[in-house]
Amino acid sequence: MVDTTIRTADAVDDGILDDHAAEGIRIDTEELSEKLLGSWPEQRRAARRLSARPEFHRIEGQNLAEHRERVFGQLKLLVENGQVHRAFPKHLGGMDDHGGNIAGFEELVTADPSLQIKAGVQWGLFGSAVVHLGTKEHHDKWLPGIMSLDIPGAFAMTEIGHGSDVASIATTATYDADTEEFVIHTPFRAAWKDYLGNAAVHGKAATLFAQLITNGVNHGVHCFYVPIRDEDGNFLPGVGGEDDGIKGGLNGIDNGRLHFTDVRIPRTNLLNRYGDVAADGTYSSPIASPGRRFFTMLGTLVQGRVSLDGAAVAASALALQIAITYGSQRRQFNAASDVQEEVILDYQRHQRRLLPKLATTYAQNFAHDQLLVKFDGVFSGKRDTDDDRQDLETLAAALKSLSTWHALDTLQEAREACGGAGFMVGNRFTSLRADLDVYVTFEGDNNVLLQLVGKRLLGDYGKRFKGADATTLAKFAAEQARGKVVHGTGLRSLAQTVADFGSTARSVGRLQDEDAQRELLTDRVESMVGAIAGRLRAASKLSKAEAAALFNANQNELIEAARAHAELLQWEAFTEALASITDPGTKKVLTWLRDLFGFELIEKHAAWYLINGRMSGQRVQSVTAYIDRLLTRLRPHAVDLVEAFGYTPDHLRAPIATGIEAERQDEAAAYFASLRASGDMPIDEKTAKSSFDALNHKK
Amino acid sequence: MVDTTIRTADAVDDGILDDHAAEGIRIDTEELSEKLLGSWPEQRRAARRLSARPEFHRIEGQNLAEHRERVFGQLKLLVENGQVHRAFPKHLGGMDDHGGNIAGFEELVTADPSLQIKAGVQWGLFGSAVVHLGTKEHHDKWLPGIMSLDIPGAFAMTEIGHGSDVASIATTATYDADTEEFVIHTPFRAAWKDYLGNAAVHGKAATLFAQLITNGVNHGVHCFYVPIRDEDGNFLPGVGGEDDGIKGGLNGIDNGRLHFTDVRIPRTNLLNRYGDVAADGTYSSPIASPGRRFFTMLGTLVQGRVSLDGAAVAASALALQIAITYGSQRRQFNAASDVQEEVILDYQRHQRRLLPKLATTYAQNFAHDQLLVKFDGVFSGKRDTDDDRQDLETLAAALKSLSTWHALDTLQEAREACGGAGFMVGNRFTSLRADLDVYVTFEGDNNVLLQLVGKRLLGDYGKRFKGADATTLAKFAAEQARGKVVHGTGLRSLAQTVADFGSTARSVGRLQDEDAQRELLTDRVESMVGAIAGRLRAASKLSKAEAAALFNANQNELIEAARAHAELLQWEAFTEALASITDPGTKKVLTWLRDLFGFELIEKHAAWYLINGRMSGQRVQSVTAYIDRLLTRLRPHAVDLVEAFGYTPDHLRAPIATGIEAERQDEAAAYFASLRASGDMPIDEKTAKSSFDALNHKK
Repeated sequence: MVDTTIRTADAVDDGILDDHAAEGIRIDTEELSEKLLGSWPEQRRAARRLSARPEFHRIEGQNLAEHRERVFGQLKLLVENGQVHRAFPKHLGGMDDHGGNIAGFEELVTADPSLQIKAGVQWGLFGSAVVHLGTKEHHDKWLPGIMSLDIPGAFAMTEIGHGSDVASIATTATYDADTEEFVIHTPFRAAWKDYLGNAAVHGKAATLFAQLITNGVNHGVHCFYVPIRDEDGNFLPGVGGEDDGIKGGLNGIDNGRLHFTDVRIPRTNLLNRYGDVAADGTYSSPIASPGRRFFTMLGTLVQGRVSLDGAAVAASALALQIAITYGSQRRQFNAASDVQEEVILDYQRHQRRLLPKLATTYAQNFAHDQLLVKFDGVFSGKRDTDDDRQDLETLAAALKSLSTWHALDTLQEAREACGGAGFMVGNRFTSLRADLDVYVTFEGDNNVLLQLVGKRLLGDYGKRFKGADATTLAKFAAEQARGKVVHGTGLRSLAQTVADFGSTARSVGRLQDEDAQRELLTDRVESMVGAIAGRLRAASKLSKAEAAALFNANQNELIEAARAHAELLQWEAFTEALASITDPGTKKVLTWLRDLFGFELIEKHAAWYLINGRMSGQRVQSVTAYIDRLLTRLRPHAVDLVEAFGYTPDHLRAPIATGIEAERQDEAAAYFASLRASGDMPIDEKTAKSSFDALNHKK
Repeated sequence: MVDTTIRTADAVDDGILDDHAAEGIRIDTEELSEKLLGSWPEQRRAARRLSARPEFHRIEGQNLAEHRERVFGQLKLLVENGQVHRAFPKHLGGMDDHGGNIAGFEELVTADPSLQIKAGVQWGLFGSAVVHLGTKEHHDKWLPGIMSLDIPGAFAMTEIGHGSDVASIATTATYDADTEEFVIHTPFRAAWKDYLGNAAVHGKAATLFAQLITNGVNHGVHCFYVPIRDEDGNFLPGVGGEDDGIKGGLNGIDNGRLHFTDVRIPRTNLLNRYGDVAADGTYSSPIASPGRRFFTMLGTLVQGRVSLDGAAVAASALALQIAITYGSQRRQFNAASDVQEEVILDYQRHQRRLLPKLATTYAQNFAHDQLLVKFDGVFSGKRDTDDDRQDLETLAAALKSLSTWHALDTLQEAREACGGAGFMVGNRFTSLRADLDVYVTFEGDNNVLLQLVGKRLLGDYGKRFKGADATTLAKFAAEQARGKVVHGTGLRSLAQTVADFGSTARSVGRLQDEDAQRELLTDRVESMVGAIAGRLRAASKLSKAEAAALFNANQNELIEAARAHAELLQWEAFTEALASITDPGTKKVLTWLRDLFGFELIEKHAAWYLINGRMSGQRVQSVTAYIDRLLTRLRPHAVDLVEAFGYTPDHLRAPIATGIEAERQDEAAAYFASLRASGDMPIDEKTAKSSFDALNHKK
């Protein structure tokens, strides 16, 4: 039998994985913890102190009404604790601290995701719409009430018929010059606003998106401030709605539907920063292009995606800390034997299930911090060009998609890795997973977001090579600087694709070399985008329907290219973070973890590398062998690596992560030891039999 | 830019995928439905009629106590409707119908998985233990009360410290010859029985597993009938416990913990079919080997796994029927335009997300029926050799693992494919997913089960080639008949592995050829097992600890080999079912669906085929191109394919699968059509601008 796979350690060329060198390495958990806190450590610490307090914690088993009231009360507590003002204007008592605000906000997920999202609805969406789409008059009039929660509000954008396609919503706001009012109207059932937090019970007003129509012209989607309930909580005339009822999670939030029948609001309730209607009905806007105006307005709402990315990373970290702590204590087999058995985290499969997810969570943590810095640059106005805004949109879409899916996968794997105990709601996984489920489709469905990223990549590709022939392409490519680290979100260097296809395979002499990983990951993104662009080139000669069919035939691959791009961005973020670590032990362990992340990506996409001649079969096998080695190298550091996230027992709140498992094992071991010592230990039937046989044999 | 991928339709050699031939093909849904019902169609239909009744349906939002009482009441309804007797002995009013019993039982999952599992605890575990481990005296004494639910009971096997390793449980049953009693005792906290359905509230007795000790000898794990509560529901003396409280799902079941402090039961409460203790304390057993005895006892419990496999398939089918129905109606973009836009199921990505899962669900449906037939053969005694029992164990472990994971993936993908609507609990996905979550770790953790399958494969391999040298191996292999369909669960023909490695690649001239798919899938299993066996051969020369480390270093790959084996079994089951379809249109469509299943497997494992020289890069790319073509071929049949599962609106109970989405779209379209006709449709700003510009230009 010929064994074609090479999986033994001997075959691995791994200088940095030398057994001897690995001994005695320790992580400086303090430095690492600080690094993981990112660019707004104080805001994050403050939020964690808050989310550690019992009054912010989810109480499992509350019914819908109880949970909703508890979370509403928690929002008031946030106000009392001065935790909600950070992103608001200074002259209204805010701090204009956009990055710090999100950093703190996303930490609330460990207390209760319903709290995080309901706060997000009130201040991040409803309030933000007033801040970013309104002007000073609106700020002065409504923000104080919004900040104090005197005006709980809904963000009424999504309609039953239109989730991802906001431009096509059907609610209308028709200007009536006679009364200087807008008439808000829902023309049919599919135009009902749906899934709106605060809409079912608590909301008194809404920032409502509708088609602005004046003088017979539709100027597209604009946002309006619309009161919806009176002081007693009754719907105002013309407003109606329904309660969404029980959801798969986030049941502390009162999601609901709203509809409007000729509801009149003053002309000045149009949030008019990007488009206004004069008393006589004349429309004006600082942005001439309707398309650009629409995307500028929607662009102010990117913080939802940014904060979901961060919250997803926090949830993954929490899940891994619980599962890895338990895995480092739990023994499954042979407690009664006198041999101390392995804990389950010593099993290769268990390591394969959890440690790559830990590596990914680290990469996503570092990538999230870069996203937050980018976000803060744009929203503070420090770095706020059109390019910056576009990069921010693309980065947020790319990272949010991968991190929210990763959080669900991680919570599930962690739950399974803890067996039946993982299924008990007290151990956190199932409840967090149920709540985070919707993160993958709200604030932009992940598949739609990745398609946006893909289109951006195609656009960048097109811009660079518009009208270029093959020679120009090759020349251009040759001029590109190789290997430079680019943290933008568009296409990175195209050099590799155009260069000799064999070069990567040859240059990747040692895969643990940073540049080799980078080249492999970068090359794949660029080649995929180039290939799709090549196939789509025919579209210009086709009918609209044929062109759409051609695009559709490449949709799946485009989304995969976007995913590859997002993975590269995560890898770059991890690598950049690594460069700033000073403690040598920490640096070494984190290098292994980064390599594990990179190798997992390469292994996952091995078929692509093989088909496209980037790697040989033997090289791919050595990647798998590397991963196996890295797992055993990282195993002794696993607990340090999760503890470095900095969550305390008040955040974890999982009985299985408290050490009771180890205590129970010790109690069992002590019982058997004492039984053996006493001589009362029953002997095994097998042993008894052989003694009996021996006795008979003697006779 | 060189495009190395070949993805255009032209490059695909696909006789059966010819566009022209595909037109006009229709499925005979009646024949297909009948086929999907499997070998016990009447029992399945009867159970579906029952599970369609409102009184068996889950009421969302009930609290723990309400849900538990409702499900307990539903169990009584099952008794009243004569649905629980089928597997019990004829002389006690049962029908000795084992396959039919499971077929019906697993259909309850559509009503409420809590109902399915609580019924499973009462009759499938607690009752079954008495049937299969007890003898006639026990049957006559306890089964009537168990069947009528007068004695609700718990199945007390799992302990906090030992889930998957039953042999190591620590509860003891020590025989006291003076009183002719067993003394049941829990020596420490880790030995508490845990996660037991019926233990927290309803259970009056338990079938309890404990180490049987008599005359100072431990005869291993045996099962005892132990009363735990009096008529008023109070624990009997020495018995204690705790409520497990809220779980991630299945909250209609009162899971709990139990512990025992020197609880005395009569000697005759030992379920003594496979091991007995005489009044004087002498132990006897019809099975001499303690190991074999243990596995024989546990083997009687395989029906839990069998029924989870079937229930998982039912849940996947339900989820796909809801999501595919919705996807065939939902339009997302441009409702206001006068062009009728595509429904979301027309998007390539949407097809890629749902149709391969449909293909897998079909494969699993057919595989499950084979499992059920095997199970019925063993339990009816018709085919009940040691080999049959071992095959049943392996098949159940392999299929249950894949189908329960698949159900979770499918429910999640379906939920995401329906966006926000999918997250509403009324549309079923989230709640079913929460309930089915634990299916992947109970009745055997899936990873542990796959490892068992892997060990069986290694064992079969070892038996065949014990002491053989390379020449013998080659000779043996050459003698194996090629291409014959083997439905056993052990290793299939080893011919391919030993034969020339190039042969597969060459022989797979047309991948849609059945034999080509079979060869590729079979070859992979055999080669993986052979490779692992080769690496483990060194173990015999190593110390126990070193051998364990060597095994551990191959654990992940062994589990992957087991997965590959299970996938092959599913593919074979699908292929066999296909052969029995008579309607040509149905056969054609199902062939595409089977091919989709096979190609997806090959694409997923493409790296392996490339590394091991089984396929060329070009061939792998043509697999991907085939898949794209199959998706568009299957798209028109998607709704028929899900409706063929035979679930009615009373099973689906999802508003989004009722046609309201299409109604809403029609209403919106009619609104815009009438608006356009009336001349009141506002014109777009863009259009208005160009008219204005044109006007100015004229001037």
